[in-house]
Amino acid sequence: MPSNDKIWTAGLVVIGDEILSGRTHDKNIAQVASWLQVQGIRLAEVRVVPDVVARIIEAVNQLRAACDYLFTTGGIGPTHDDITVDAVAQALDVPVVIHPEARAILERYYADKGGLNEGRLRMARVPEGAELIPNRMSGAPGIRRENVILMAGVPHITAGMLDALTGKLEGGAPLKSETIGCWTAESEVAGMLREVESAHENCQIGSYPFFREGRVGANFVVRSTDAGDLAKCVHDLTDGLAERGFEFTHGGI
Amino acid sequence: MPSNDKIWTAGLVVIGDEILSGRTHDKNIAQVASWLQVQGIRLAEVRVVPDVVARIIEAVNQLRAACDYLFTTGGIGPTHDDITVDAVAQALDVPVVIHPEARAILERYYADKGGLNEGRLRMARVPEGAELIPNRMSGAPGIRRENVILMAGVPHITAGMLDALTGKLEGGAPLKSETIGCWTAESEVAGMLREVESAHENCQIGSYPFFREGRVGANFVVRSTDAGDLAKCVHDLTDGLAERGFEFTHGGI
Repeated sequence: MPSNDKIWTAGLVVIGDEILSGRTHDKNIAQVASWLQVQGIRLAEVRVVPDVVARIIEAVNQLRAACDYLFTTGGIGPTHDDITVDAVAQALDVPVVIHPEARAILERYYADKGGLNEGRLRMARVPEGAELIPNRMSGAPGIRRENVILMAGVPHITAGMLDALTGKLEGGAPLKSETIGCWTAESEVAGMLREVESAHENCQIGSYPFFREGRVGANFVVRSTDAGDLAKCVHDLTDGLAERGFEFTHGGI
Repeated sequence: MPSNDKIWTAGLVVIGDEILSGRTHDKNIAQVASWLQVQGIRLAEVRVVPDVVARIIEAVNQLRAACDYLFTTGGIGPTHDDITVDAVAQALDVPVVIHPEARAILERYYADKGGLNEGRLRMARVPEGAELIPNRMSGAPGIRRENVILMAGVPHITAGMLDALTGKLEGGAPLKSETIGCWTAESEVAGMLREVESAHENCQIGSYPFFREGRVGANFVVRSTDAGDLAKCVHDLTDGLAERGFEFTHGGI
Protein backbone atom coordinates (compact mmCIF):
# COMPACT_ATOMS: atom_id res chain seq x y z
CA MET A 1 0.00 0.00 0.00
CA PRO A 2 1.18 3.60 -0.53
CA SER A 3 3.61 4.54 2.23
CA ASN A 4 1.89 7.87 2.87
CA ASP A 5 -1.34 6.14 3.90
CA LYS A 6 -1.66 5.59 7.61
CA ILE A 7 -2.74 2.06 8.49
CA TRP A 8 -5.38 2.28 11.19
CA THR A 9 -5.36 -0.56 13.67
CA ALA A 10 -7.60 -1.98 16.38
CA GLY A 11 -7.15 -4.44 19.22
CA LEU A 12 -10.00 -6.57 20.55
CA VAL A 13 -10.26 -7.93 24.08
CA VAL A 14 -12.86 -10.69 24.42
CA ILE A 15 -13.80 -10.97 28.07
CA GLY A 16 -15.33 -14.10 29.45
CA ASP A 17 -14.69 -17.33 31.31
CA GLU A 18 -17.35 -18.94 29.11
CA ILE A 19 -15.11 -18.62 26.04
CA LEU A 20 -12.01 -19.89 27.85
CA SER A 21 -13.92 -22.90 29.20
CA GLY A 22 -15.08 -23.85 25.72
CA ARG A 23 -18.71 -23.61 26.80
CA THR A 24 -19.50 -20.73 24.44
CA HIS A 25 -18.13 -20.54 20.90
CA ASP A 26 -17.04 -16.97 20.28
CA LYS A 27 -18.70 -15.30 17.33
CA ASN A 28 -17.54 -11.76 18.01
CA ILE A 29 -13.97 -12.07 16.74
CA ALA A 30 -15.18 -12.79 13.22
CA GLN A 31 -17.93 -10.19 13.19
CA VAL A 32 -15.76 -7.42 14.66
CA ALA A 33 -12.98 -8.35 12.21
CA SER A 34 -15.27 -8.22 9.17
CA TRP A 35 -16.83 -4.94 10.29
CA LEU A 36 -13.42 -3.34 10.86
CA GLN A 37 -12.31 -4.26 7.32
CA VAL A 38 -15.17 -2.19 5.95
CA GLN A 39 -14.23 0.75 8.19
CA GLY A 40 -10.67 0.69 6.82
CA ILE A 41 -9.28 -0.45 10.18
CA ARG A 42 -7.07 -3.49 10.54
CA LEU A 43 -7.64 -5.90 13.43
CA ALA A 44 -4.09 -6.22 14.74
CA GLU A 45 -4.57 -8.56 17.69
CA VAL A 46 -7.25 -10.28 19.75
CA ARG A 47 -6.90 -11.40 23.35
CA VAL A 48 -9.38 -13.58 25.16
CA VAL A 49 -9.08 -13.07 28.92
CA PRO A 50 -11.00 -14.35 31.95
CA ASP A 51 -13.39 -12.39 34.19
CA VAL A 52 -10.50 -11.11 36.32
CA VAL A 53 -10.00 -7.36 36.71
CA ALA A 54 -6.20 -7.42 36.67
CA ARG A 55 -6.11 -9.54 33.50
CA ILE A 56 -8.56 -7.25 31.71
CA ILE A 57 -6.56 -4.17 32.72
CA GLU A 58 -3.33 -5.69 31.41
CA ALA A 59 -4.82 -6.64 28.05
CA VAL A 60 -6.63 -3.33 27.61
CA ASN A 61 -3.57 -1.25 28.42
CA GLN A 62 -1.22 -3.24 26.20
CA LEU A 63 -3.52 -3.21 23.19
CA ARG A 64 -4.70 0.39 23.49
CA ALA A 65 -1.07 1.49 23.57
CA ALA A 66 -0.28 -0.60 20.49
CA CYS A 67 -3.40 0.19 18.42
CA ASP A 68 -5.48 3.18 17.32
CA TYR A 69 -8.67 1.66 18.75
CA LEU A 70 -9.40 -0.80 21.50
CA PHE A 71 -12.65 -2.78 21.50
CA THR A 72 -13.95 -5.10 24.19
CA THR A 73 -16.82 -7.57 24.06
CA GLY A 74 -18.51 -9.06 27.10
CA GLY A 75 -18.91 -8.29 30.77
CA ILE A 76 -21.15 -5.21 30.62
CA GLY A 77 -24.34 -6.89 31.87
CA PRO A 78 -26.06 -6.76 35.27
CA THR A 79 -24.44 -9.66 37.15
CA HIS A 80 -21.52 -10.00 39.56
CA ASP A 81 -19.26 -11.42 36.83
CA ASP A 82 -19.78 -8.30 34.66
CA ILE A 83 -16.67 -6.34 35.60
CA THR A 84 -15.54 -4.82 32.31
CA VAL A 85 -16.55 -1.24 33.18
CA ASP A 86 -14.68 -1.38 36.50
CA ALA A 87 -11.59 -2.87 34.89
CA VAL A 88 -11.51 -0.42 31.98
CA ALA A 89 -12.07 2.57 34.28
CA GLN A 90 -9.06 1.42 36.30
CA ALA A 91 -7.06 0.96 33.10
CA LEU A 92 -7.95 4.51 32.03
CA ASP A 93 -7.41 5.81 35.58
CA VAL A 94 -10.84 7.43 35.85
CA PRO A 95 -13.68 6.74 38.30
CA VAL A 96 -16.83 4.79 37.48
CA VAL A 97 -19.90 7.04 37.39
CA ILE A 98 -23.59 6.57 36.65
CA HIS A 99 -24.30 8.00 33.18
CA PRO A 100 -27.59 9.96 33.47
CA GLU A 101 -28.71 9.18 29.92
CA ALA A 102 -27.96 5.47 30.37
CA ARG A 103 -29.95 5.51 33.59
CA ALA A 104 -32.89 7.16 31.78
CA ILE A 105 -32.68 4.58 28.95
CA LEU A 106 -32.75 1.73 31.45
CA GLU A 107 -35.63 3.28 33.43
CA ARG A 108 -37.69 3.45 30.25
CA TYR A 109 -36.66 -0.03 29.13
CA TYR A 110 -37.49 -1.67 32.45
CA ALA A 111 -40.60 0.47 33.20
CA ASP A 112 -42.94 -2.42 32.36
CA LYS A 113 -40.49 -5.13 33.47
CA GLY A 114 -40.38 -4.46 37.23
CA GLY A 115 -38.32 -1.25 37.15
CA LEU A 116 -34.66 -0.67 37.95
CA ASN A 117 -32.92 -2.73 40.63
CA GLU A 118 -29.33 -2.86 41.79
CA GLY A 119 -28.27 -5.27 39.04
CA ARG A 120 -29.97 -3.32 36.26
CA LEU A 121 -28.54 -0.03 37.50
CA ARG A 122 -25.06 -1.55 37.09
CA MET A 123 -25.62 -1.24 33.36
CA ALA A 124 -25.73 2.58 33.65
CA ARG A 125 -22.19 2.63 35.08
CA VAL A 126 -19.47 3.97 32.75
CA PRO A 127 -15.89 5.18 33.02
CA GLU A 128 -16.14 8.94 33.66
CA GLY A 129 -16.17 10.94 30.43
CA ALA A 130 -17.73 8.19 28.32
CA GLU A 131 -20.49 8.52 25.75
CA LEU A 132 -23.07 5.86 24.92
CA ILE A 133 -23.50 3.51 21.96
CA PRO A 134 -27.19 2.80 21.26
CA ASN A 135 -28.54 -0.71 21.81
CA ARG A 136 -31.97 -1.07 20.25
CA MET A 137 -32.11 -4.72 21.20
CA SER A 138 -32.01 -4.82 24.98
CA GLY A 139 -31.75 -1.31 26.39
CA ALA A 140 -28.35 -1.36 28.06
CA PRO A 141 -26.04 0.75 25.88
CA GLY A 142 -22.49 0.16 24.78
CA ILE A 143 -19.84 2.59 25.94
CA ARG A 144 -17.23 4.66 24.14
CA ARG A 145 -14.53 6.71 25.78
CA GLU A 146 -12.31 8.23 23.11
CA ASN A 147 -10.68 5.29 21.33
CA VAL A 148 -11.88 2.65 23.81
CA ILE A 149 -15.16 0.98 22.90
CA LEU A 150 -17.01 -1.45 25.19
CA MET A 151 -19.62 -3.68 23.61
CA ALA A 152 -21.93 -6.48 24.70
CA GLY A 153 -20.91 -10.13 24.55
CA VAL A 154 -24.16 -11.51 23.12
CA PRO A 155 -23.37 -11.52 19.38
CA HIS A 156 -26.57 -10.02 17.99
CA ILE A 157 -26.38 -7.16 20.51
CA THR A 158 -22.74 -6.63 19.57
CA ALA A 159 -23.87 -6.52 15.95
CA GLY A 160 -26.36 -3.75 16.73
CA MET A 161 -23.67 -1.71 18.47
CA LEU A 162 -21.29 -2.15 15.53
CA ASP A 163 -24.08 -0.99 13.25
CA ALA A 164 -24.52 2.13 15.40
CA LEU A 165 -20.78 2.82 15.09
CA THR A 166 -20.62 2.35 11.31
CA GLY A 167 -18.95 5.31 9.64
CA LYS A 168 -18.25 7.01 13.00
CA LEU A 169 -14.60 5.98 13.35
CA GLU A 170 -11.72 7.45 11.41
CA GLY A 171 -10.08 4.80 9.25
CA GLY A 172 -7.96 4.36 6.16
CA ALA A 173 -8.59 2.80 2.79
CA PRO A 174 -10.48 -0.47 3.19
CA LEU A 175 -8.40 -3.54 2.47
CA LYS A 176 -9.59 -5.14 -0.77
CA SER A 177 -9.28 -8.84 -1.36
CA GLU A 178 -9.88 -11.38 -4.07
CA THR A 179 -10.01 -15.12 -3.59
CA ILE A 180 -8.85 -17.72 -6.09
CA GLY A 181 -9.91 -21.27 -5.32
CA CYS A 182 -7.97 -24.22 -6.71
CA TRP A 183 -8.20 -28.00 -6.45
CA THR A 184 -4.53 -28.43 -5.60
CA ALA A 185 -2.56 -29.31 -2.52
CA GLU A 186 -1.06 -25.98 -1.47
CA SER A 187 2.28 -27.79 -1.21
CA GLU A 188 2.23 -28.20 -5.02
CA VAL A 189 2.33 -24.44 -5.59
CA ALA A 190 4.04 -23.08 -2.47
CA GLY A 191 7.11 -21.86 -4.40
CA MET A 192 5.02 -20.08 -7.04
CA LEU A 193 2.90 -18.35 -4.39
CA ARG A 194 5.99 -17.02 -2.69
CA GLU A 195 7.41 -15.71 -5.98
CA VAL A 196 4.19 -13.98 -6.99
CA GLU A 197 3.83 -12.33 -3.58
CA SER A 198 7.46 -11.13 -3.69
CA ALA A 199 6.86 -9.58 -7.12
CA HIS A 200 3.91 -7.48 -5.83
CA GLU A 201 5.05 -5.54 -2.81
CA ASN A 202 1.70 -3.89 -2.12
CA CYS A 203 -0.07 -7.26 -1.95
CA GLN A 204 -0.23 -10.16 0.46
CA ILE A 205 -1.24 -13.70 -0.49
CA GLY A 206 -2.75 -15.98 2.15
CA SER A 207 -3.09 -19.69 1.45
CA TYR A 208 -5.93 -21.59 3.15
CA PRO A 209 -6.07 -25.32 2.51
CA PHE A 210 -9.18 -27.43 2.88
CA PHE A 211 -10.34 -31.00 2.51
CA ARG A 212 -13.71 -31.41 0.88
CA GLU A 213 -15.52 -34.20 -0.95
CA GLY A 214 -12.48 -36.37 -0.38
CA ARG A 215 -10.19 -33.96 -2.27
CA VAL A 216 -7.59 -31.41 -1.23
CA GLY A 217 -7.86 -27.82 -2.33
CA ALA A 218 -6.84 -24.36 -1.27
CA ASN A 219 -8.15 -20.83 -1.45
CA PHE A 220 -5.55 -18.17 -2.16
CA VAL A 221 -6.60 -14.77 -0.85
CA VAL A 222 -4.83 -11.76 -2.36
CA ARG A 223 -5.13 -8.58 -0.28
CA SER A 224 -4.21 -4.98 -1.07
CA THR A 225 -5.54 -1.50 -0.40
CA ASP A 226 -4.94 -0.70 -4.10
CA ALA A 227 -7.37 -2.16 -6.64
CA GLY A 228 -4.89 -1.93 -9.52
CA ASP A 229 -2.09 -3.68 -7.65
CA LEU A 230 -4.56 -6.31 -6.51
CA ALA A 231 -5.68 -7.03 -10.08
CA LYS A 232 -2.06 -7.36 -11.31
CA CYS A 233 -1.17 -9.78 -8.54
CA VAL A 234 -4.30 -11.89 -9.15
CA HIS A 235 -3.39 -11.96 -12.86
CA ASP A 236 0.10 -13.32 -12.17
CA LEU A 237 -1.24 -15.82 -9.65
CA THR A 238 -3.85 -17.24 -12.03
CA ASP A 239 -1.26 -17.33 -14.85
CA GLY A 240 0.99 -19.35 -12.56
CA LEU A 241 -1.80 -21.79 -11.74
CA ALA A 242 -2.79 -22.15 -15.40
CA GLU A 243 0.84 -22.76 -16.47
CA ARG A 244 0.99 -25.66 -14.03
CA GLY A 245 -2.23 -27.12 -15.41
CA PHE A 246 -4.45 -26.32 -12.42
CA GLU A 247 -8.03 -25.20 -12.79
CA PHE A 248 -9.05 -22.30 -10.60
CA THR A 249 -12.21 -20.45 -9.63
CA HIS A 250 -12.50 -16.71 -9.10
CA GLY A 251 -14.31 -16.06 -5.83
CA GLY A 252 -12.91 -19.18 -4.19
CA ILE A 253 -14.17 -22.69 -3.68
CA MET B 1 -10.73 -25.72 45.07
CA PRO B 2 -8.35 -27.12 47.73
CA SER B 3 -5.45 -24.74 48.15
CA ASN B 4 -2.88 -27.57 47.97
CA ASP B 5 -3.92 -28.43 44.43
CA LYS B 6 -1.86 -26.77 41.75
CA ILE B 7 -3.95 -25.15 39.05
CA TRP B 8 -2.40 -26.04 35.69
CA THR B 9 -2.74 -23.39 33.04
CA ALA B 10 -2.28 -23.05 29.30
CA GLY B 11 -2.02 -20.17 26.88
CA LEU B 12 -3.11 -20.44 23.25
CA VAL B 13 -1.72 -18.40 20.38
CA VAL B 14 -3.90 -18.56 17.26
CA ILE B 15 -1.77 -17.55 14.29
CA GLY B 16 -3.32 -16.29 11.12
CA ASP B 17 -4.25 -13.25 9.09
CA GLU B 18 -7.36 -15.14 7.95
CA ILE B 19 -8.83 -15.00 11.47
CA LEU B 20 -7.99 -11.32 11.95
CA SER B 21 -9.52 -10.41 8.58
CA GLY B 22 -12.79 -12.14 9.50
CA ARG B 23 -12.49 -14.42 6.48
CA THR B 24 -12.19 -17.58 8.56
CA HIS B 25 -14.21 -18.18 11.72
CA ASP B 26 -11.91 -19.69 14.31
CA LYS B 27 -13.02 -23.04 15.66
CA ASN B 28 -9.83 -23.94 17.50
CA ILE B 29 -10.30 -21.74 20.57
CA ALA B 30 -13.43 -23.65 21.58
CA GLN B 31 -12.05 -27.10 20.81
CA VAL B 32 -8.71 -26.51 22.54
CA ALA B 33 -10.59 -25.01 25.53
CA SER B 34 -12.93 -27.98 25.86
CA TRP B 35 -10.10 -30.48 25.48
CA LEU B 36 -7.98 -28.72 28.12
CA GLN B 37 -10.85 -28.88 30.64
CA VAL B 38 -10.82 -32.65 30.38
CA GLN B 39 -7.04 -32.73 30.88
CA GLY B 40 -7.39 -30.70 34.10
CA ILE B 41 -5.68 -27.70 32.53
CA ARG B 42 -7.24 -24.25 32.55
CA LEU B 43 -7.07 -22.10 29.42
CA ALA B 44 -5.81 -18.83 30.92
CA GLU B 45 -5.56 -16.64 27.83
CA VAL B 46 -5.83 -16.71 24.06
CA ARG B 47 -4.12 -14.35 21.66
CA VAL B 48 -4.85 -14.12 17.97
CA VAL B 49 -1.89 -12.64 16.12
CA PRO B 50 -1.07 -12.04 12.45
CA ASP B 51 1.45 -13.91 10.28
CA VAL B 52 4.30 -11.70 11.50
CA VAL B 53 7.33 -13.31 13.16
CA ALA B 54 7.90 -10.58 15.75
CA ARG B 55 4.26 -10.64 16.85
CA ILE B 56 4.25 -14.43 17.21
CA ILE B 57 7.47 -14.33 19.24
CA GLU B 58 6.04 -11.70 21.59
CA ALA B 59 2.82 -13.61 22.22
CA VAL B 60 4.57 -16.97 22.62
CA ASN B 61 7.13 -15.63 25.06
CA GLN B 62 4.60 -13.74 27.19
CA LEU B 63 2.19 -16.66 27.45
CA ARG B 64 4.75 -19.40 27.95
CA ALA B 65 6.21 -17.41 30.84
CA ALA B 66 2.75 -16.92 32.36
CA CYS B 67 1.36 -20.46 31.82
CA ASP B 68 2.39 -24.08 32.31
CA TYR B 69 1.75 -24.90 28.66
CA LEU B 70 1.75 -22.89 25.46
CA PHE B 71 -0.21 -24.08 22.44
CA THR B 72 -0.26 -22.59 18.98
CA THR B 73 -2.60 -23.29 16.08
CA GLY B 74 -1.89 -22.38 12.47
CA GLY B 75 1.09 -21.58 10.31
CA ILE B 76 2.81 -25.00 10.13
CA GLY B 77 1.91 -25.80 6.52
CA PRO B 78 4.04 -25.69 3.34
CA THR B 79 3.53 -22.13 2.10
CA HIS B 80 5.42 -18.86 2.50
CA ASP B 81 2.95 -17.57 5.10
CA ASP B 82 3.58 -20.59 7.35
CA ILE B 83 6.16 -19.11 9.71
CA THR B 84 5.20 -20.53 13.09
CA VAL B 85 8.17 -22.91 13.36
CA ASP B 86 10.65 -20.13 12.58
CA ALA B 87 9.01 -17.74 15.05
CA VAL B 88 8.79 -20.28 17.87
CA ALA B 89 12.38 -21.43 17.33
CA GLN B 90 13.47 -17.79 17.68
CA ALA B 91 11.31 -17.42 20.79
CA LEU B 92 12.95 -20.51 22.29
CA ASP B 93 16.38 -19.39 21.06
CA VAL B 94 17.13 -22.65 19.23
CA PRO B 95 17.84 -23.27 15.55
CA VAL B 96 15.35 -24.76 13.09
CA VAL B 97 16.36 -28.26 11.99
CA ILE B 98 14.89 -30.95 9.74
CA HIS B 99 13.42 -33.67 11.94
CA PRO B 100 14.46 -37.01 10.34
CA GLU B 101 11.29 -38.83 11.40
CA ALA B 102 9.09 -36.00 10.11
CA ARG B 103 10.96 -36.14 6.80
CA ALA B 104 10.40 -39.89 6.61
CA ILE B 105 6.69 -39.47 7.38
CA LEU B 106 6.34 -36.86 4.64
CA GLU B 107 8.30 -38.98 2.13
CA ARG B 108 5.90 -41.86 2.72
CA TYR B 109 2.83 -39.60 2.66
CA TYR B 110 3.79 -37.90 -0.62
CA ALA B 111 5.30 -41.00 -2.29
CA ASP B 112 2.25 -41.39 -4.56
CA LYS B 113 1.50 -37.64 -4.71
CA GLY B 114 4.55 -36.38 -6.61
CA GLY B 115 7.13 -36.77 -3.83
CA LEU B 116 8.75 -34.18 -1.60
CA ASN B 117 9.40 -30.68 -2.89
CA GLU B 118 10.70 -27.55 -1.18
CA GLY B 119 7.29 -26.57 0.19
CA ARG B 120 6.49 -30.02 1.52
CA LEU B 121 9.92 -30.37 3.11
CA ARG B 122 9.17 -27.19 5.08
CA MET B 123 6.74 -29.31 7.10
CA ALA B 124 9.64 -31.43 8.43
CA ARG B 125 11.25 -28.35 10.00
CA VAL B 126 11.09 -28.14 13.80
CA PRO B 127 12.73 -26.14 16.58
CA GLU B 128 15.81 -28.19 17.59
CA GLY B 129 15.03 -30.68 20.36
CA ALA B 130 11.37 -31.09 19.42
CA GLU B 131 9.37 -34.31 19.24
CA LEU B 132 6.49 -34.99 16.88
CA ILE B 133 2.73 -35.19 17.39
CA PRO B 134 1.11 -37.72 15.02
CA ASN B 135 -1.23 -36.46 12.30
CA ARG B 136 -3.16 -39.35 10.79
CA MET B 137 -5.14 -36.98 8.60
CA SER B 138 -2.62 -35.30 6.35
CA GLY B 139 0.89 -36.52 7.12
CA ALA B 140 2.58 -33.36 8.41
CA PRO B 141 3.01 -33.82 12.16
CA GLY B 142 2.43 -31.41 15.01
CA ILE B 143 5.42 -30.41 17.10
CA ARG B 144 6.10 -30.48 20.81
CA ARG B 145 9.14 -29.04 22.51
CA GLU B 146 8.80 -29.39 26.27
CA ASN B 147 5.76 -27.31 27.24
CA VAL B 148 5.36 -25.65 23.83
CA ILE B 149 2.99 -27.42 21.45
CA LEU B 150 2.49 -26.43 17.81
CA MET B 151 -0.62 -27.67 16.06
CA ALA B 152 -2.27 -27.30 12.67
CA GLY B 153 -4.79 -24.55 11.96
CA VAL B 154 -7.30 -26.69 10.03
CA PRO B 155 -9.71 -27.67 12.82
CA HIS B 156 -10.13 -31.36 12.09
CA ILE B 157 -6.36 -31.81 11.90
CA THR B 158 -5.99 -29.89 15.16
CA ALA B 159 -8.58 -32.27 16.64
CA GLY B 160 -6.51 -35.29 15.61
CA MET B 161 -3.40 -33.81 17.22
CA LEU B 162 -5.30 -33.08 20.45
CA ASP B 163 -6.51 -36.66 20.41
CA ALA B 164 -2.90 -37.86 20.09
CA LEU B 165 -1.97 -35.72 23.13
CA THR B 166 -4.86 -36.90 25.31
CA GLY B 167 -3.61 -38.08 28.68
CA LYS B 168 0.00 -37.16 27.83
CA LEU B 169 0.14 -33.81 29.67
CA GLU B 170 0.36 -33.41 33.41
CA GLY B 171 -2.72 -31.61 34.74
CA GLY B 172 -4.80 -31.15 37.87
CA ALA B 173 -8.31 -32.13 38.79
CA PRO B 174 -10.67 -31.46 35.89
CA LEU B 175 -13.01 -28.55 36.46
CA LYS B 176 -16.55 -29.85 36.92
CA SER B 177 -19.53 -27.77 35.97
CA GLU B 178 -23.30 -27.88 36.15
CA THR B 179 -25.66 -25.65 34.22
CA ILE B 180 -29.01 -24.39 35.45
CA GLY B 181 -31.21 -22.80 32.80
CA CYS B 182 -33.92 -20.34 33.76
CA TRP B 183 -36.46 -18.22 31.89
CA THR B 184 -35.56 -15.02 33.70
CA ALA B 185 -33.76 -11.84 32.83
CA GLU B 186 -30.41 -12.23 34.59
CA SER B 187 -30.95 -8.72 35.96
CA GLU B 188 -33.82 -10.13 38.07
CA VAL B 189 -31.52 -12.42 40.03
CA ALA B 190 -28.14 -10.68 39.88
CA GLY B 191 -28.06 -10.00 43.63
CA MET B 192 -28.93 -13.57 44.53
CA LEU B 193 -26.28 -14.97 42.17
CA ARG B 194 -23.63 -12.81 43.81
CA GLU B 195 -24.70 -13.93 47.32
CA VAL B 196 -24.70 -17.62 46.43
CA GLU B 197 -21.27 -17.40 44.80
CA SER B 198 -19.85 -15.55 47.83
CA ALA B 199 -21.18 -18.28 50.14
CA HIS B 200 -19.33 -21.02 48.20
CA GLU B 201 -15.70 -20.06 47.95
CA ASN B 202 -14.64 -23.10 45.92
CA CYS B 203 -17.22 -22.36 43.24
CA GLN B 204 -17.68 -19.83 40.48
CA ILE B 205 -21.02 -18.93 38.91
CA GLY B 206 -21.12 -17.60 35.37
CA SER B 207 -24.31 -16.03 34.03
CA TYR B 208 -24.99 -16.27 30.28
CA PRO B 209 -28.11 -14.51 29.03
CA PHE B 210 -29.91 -15.37 25.83
CA PHE B 211 -32.91 -14.31 23.78
CA ARG B 212 -34.88 -17.16 22.27
CA GLU B 213 -38.42 -17.62 21.02
CA GLY B 214 -39.05 -13.97 21.87
CA ARG B 215 -38.22 -14.50 25.56
CA VAL B 216 -35.24 -13.67 27.74
CA GLY B 217 -33.50 -16.37 29.70
CA ALA B 218 -30.13 -17.19 31.18
CA ASN B 219 -27.96 -20.19 31.85
CA PHE B 220 -26.10 -20.15 35.14
CA VAL B 221 -22.95 -22.27 35.03
CA VAL B 222 -21.54 -23.36 38.39
CA ARG B 223 -17.92 -24.51 38.24
CA SER B 224 -15.71 -26.23 40.83
CA THR B 225 -13.02 -28.88 40.94
CA ASP B 226 -14.85 -30.46 43.93
CA ALA B 227 -18.05 -32.40 43.20
CA GLY B 228 -19.41 -31.97 46.74
CA ASP B 229 -18.90 -28.21 46.79
CA LEU B 230 -20.42 -28.00 43.33
CA ALA B 231 -23.57 -29.86 44.43
CA LYS B 232 -24.01 -27.61 47.49
CA CYS B 233 -23.69 -24.45 45.43
CA VAL B 234 -26.14 -25.74 42.79
CA HIS B 235 -28.56 -26.59 45.63
CA ASP B 236 -28.46 -23.05 47.04
CA LEU B 237 -28.77 -21.52 43.57
CA THR B 238 -31.85 -23.57 42.64
CA ASP B 239 -33.36 -22.86 46.09
CA GLY B 240 -32.87 -19.15 45.41
CA LEU B 241 -34.54 -19.40 42.00
CA ALA B 242 -37.46 -21.41 43.39
CA GLU B 243 -37.98 -18.93 46.27
CA ARG B 244 -38.37 -16.18 43.69
CA GLY B 245 -40.91 -18.19 41.74
CA PHE B 246 -38.67 -19.00 38.75
CA GLU B 247 -38.75 -22.35 37.01
CA PHE B 248 -35.38 -23.81 36.17
CA THR B 249 -33.95 -26.68 34.18
CA HIS B 250 -30.97 -28.80 35.20
CA GLY B 251 -28.62 -29.11 32.25
CA GLY B 252 -29.47 -25.66 30.95
CA ILE B 253 -31.86 -24.36 28.34
